[in-house]
Amino acid sequence: MNRPEDEVLRAVTVDIAQGNARGIASIYNSAVAAWAIAAAWEIGALDELHRARTLDTADFAERNDLDPQSTTGLFRALSAVGLVHRDGAVVHTLDAYDDMYRNKSFFHWLTRGSAELFRQIPSVLRTENRTGEDRLRDPAAIAYACREIDQVTYAPTFWAAVDRVDLPFTRVADLGCGSGARLMQVLDRHPGTTGVGVDIAQPSIDVARKEAAEAGFAGRADFVQGDVLSLEPRPEYADIELLTCFMMGHDFWHGGRENCVATLRRLREVFPAAKRLLIGDATRTALPDTELPVFTLGFELGHDLMGTFLPTIDDWESVFEEGGWKLVRTNRIEMTVGEVIFELA
Amino acid sequence: MNRPEDEVLRAVTVDIAQGNARGIASIYNSAVAAWAIAAAWEIGALDELHRARTLDTADFAERNDLDPQSTTGLFRALSAVGLVHRDGAVVHTLDAYDDMYRNKSFFHWLTRGSAELFRQIPSVLRTENRTGEDRLRDPAAIAYACREIDQVTYAPTFWAAVDRVDLPFTRVADLGCGSGARLMQVLDRHPGTTGVGVDIAQPSIDVARKEAAEAGFAGRADFVQGDVLSLEPRPEYADIELLTCFMMGHDFWHGGRENCVATLRRLREVFPAAKRLLIGDATRTALPDTELPVFTLGFELGHDLMGTFLPTIDDWESVFEEGGWKLVRTNRIEMTVGEVIFELA
Repeated sequence: MNRPEDEVLRAVTVDIAQGNARGIASIYNSAVAAWAIAAAWEIGALDELHRARTLDTADFAERNDLDPQSTTGLFRALSAVGLVHRDGAVVHTLDAYDDMYRNKSFFHWLTRGSAELFRQIPSVLRTENRTGEDRLRDPAAIAYACREIDQVTYAPTFWAAVDRVDLPFTRVADLGCGSGARLMQVLDRHPGTTGVGVDIAQPSIDVARKEAAEAGFAGRADFVQGDVLSLEPRPEYADIELLTCFMMGHDFWHGGRENCVATLRRLREVFPAAKRLLIGDATRTALPDTELPVFTLGFELGHDLMGTFLPTIDDWESVFEEGGWKLVRTNRIEMTVGEVIFELA
Repeated sequence: MNRPEDEVLRAVTVDIAQGNARGIASIYNSAVAAWAIAAAWEIGALDELHRARTLDTADFAERNDLDPQSTTGLFRALSAVGLVHRDGAVVHTLDAYDDMYRNKSFFHWLTRGSAELFRQIPSVLRTENRTGEDRLRDPAAIAYACREIDQVTYAPTFWAAVDRVDLPFTRVADLGCGSGARLMQVLDRHPGTTGVGVDIAQPSIDVARKEAAEAGFAGRADFVQGDVLSLEPRPEYADIELLTCFMMGHDFWHGGRENCVATLRRLREVFPAAKRLLIGDATRTALPDTELPVFTLGFELGHDLMGTFLPTIDDWESVFEEGGWKLVRTNRIEMTVGEVIFELA
């Protein structure tokens, strides 16, 4: 029924190379596949196929009370772009499948978390509609994707940076802590430490407190609702030695460079005992259009549409000293969206 | 800045062929480009670039009160998949551009008209949520895309079929007339004829009456709100000689084959003077996944998600006689979604 994968892929590639109708079809079918990847991951089908290397999609649909024809249709989309080989309802992984599987959270961010933002481009573009808001995205879906995006991109470099903290620490704070996963991971790896998580979203704080209690961190992890961009000193901040701040650093730049300097200075004052500040975030890239990796194009266009400034690594390195911090080390991850972790003292 | 297009395309194709990370990036960037194509068309940028072959996107943004960085970002997406060459804010068309331009309405159908349906796949798939409704799509956006989809796919074959109607006709009816464009085109081409348009949506009927009046068809075109699947005889139907029905024939099959037969029979009774019935619609295709043209994958998965049955050409040809109609000719267009026009007597 289907042709062998090598032929499939050669066909697709020749088509694109010739810029003919089939090349356009590859672009179109890739768009459908992007939605299918995110959905197939969320319903658990990608994981099953990843483990078993083959999946009977009709059987999967029955076991999970899903519409069989639509469920098989998701994998028809994956088959159309050469990620799986499909024979009726049964699919097998192809070489490209594992690359897709590693990147599934970026597809989810785009098609589940940000679809409405991209759908509304014609109105979002209009000067009179520039609200700079994030209202068109789905916060729950973004959080779902970002948990894995953090693991795929920052985690290894983050732990190496924590291990490089030369002085022993007993108190840690995570700024923009979300549901508190990072803080609990740090406390878990460092027995005898306690910490506080700060986030502007009360719902995240509530989830964090609940999950911390369930995970047995009740006595060690405290969570406070607060805007990291305008923190006031608090007793529980006074003895914090390690500060971490991930995936929100670009917000420091809202309103311009001077606001970033001011926020960095305030962190010195609000956390007088801090020996280390680890800032991990995406930065604006400068790659040729045709060499853009997964995520970058969607991430940067999405933030342009929302009117969010994304600093470059040079932008960041120009503010630390003025902000009262010494740059100890710049860890360039740059896997997809110019991820970097700055180690500051 | 960018590499020459042939290199670009070769790179993309080799990457996909190797199923490596850049191959996945091509799929990801194609998804972003699909949104950019629809948006760039709607804001008028695709048309300007199509005519002039080059466009200063910053200048376009200023002339149209759009955010310049986001506007250029749309073309960065087109550049990432080899449709244009970008140099800062200025873009030039590449060979593949014209293929994309011809197919832009299909991208719009997917990313502007149907984005929410595809975003909601994880919940739409669930058996308990199978409503069969179309509530997640954007009717206005679907109509915007379908006007051009009709021109690209059905129009030439439709007019040839109308010209083949051997007996002269003075009265025509269009079933599922929408805003009445097709009926007015027929009246315009056939002086001395009058007609009636039937549609289930009162808003469409209102628009049709308004546009018919503006176009000077007030005396010749009448519009009636009614469900084509359960029409009752009316005086204005009694002398209709030519019946046309486009892009709604698959609804005849709702509830099964017998319902399609019943609807075809009812049309014979409600339109006793009808000499010709032209049914133009998409049909279920049977192409290998890897040879699917633009539109098919999105169209068929979309209808599966909505629980809409799509008949094959064989399904259709099996009901006409029972339905009281003689198949004069089957025009297989099959440009994208198995488009076909049946000429019935």
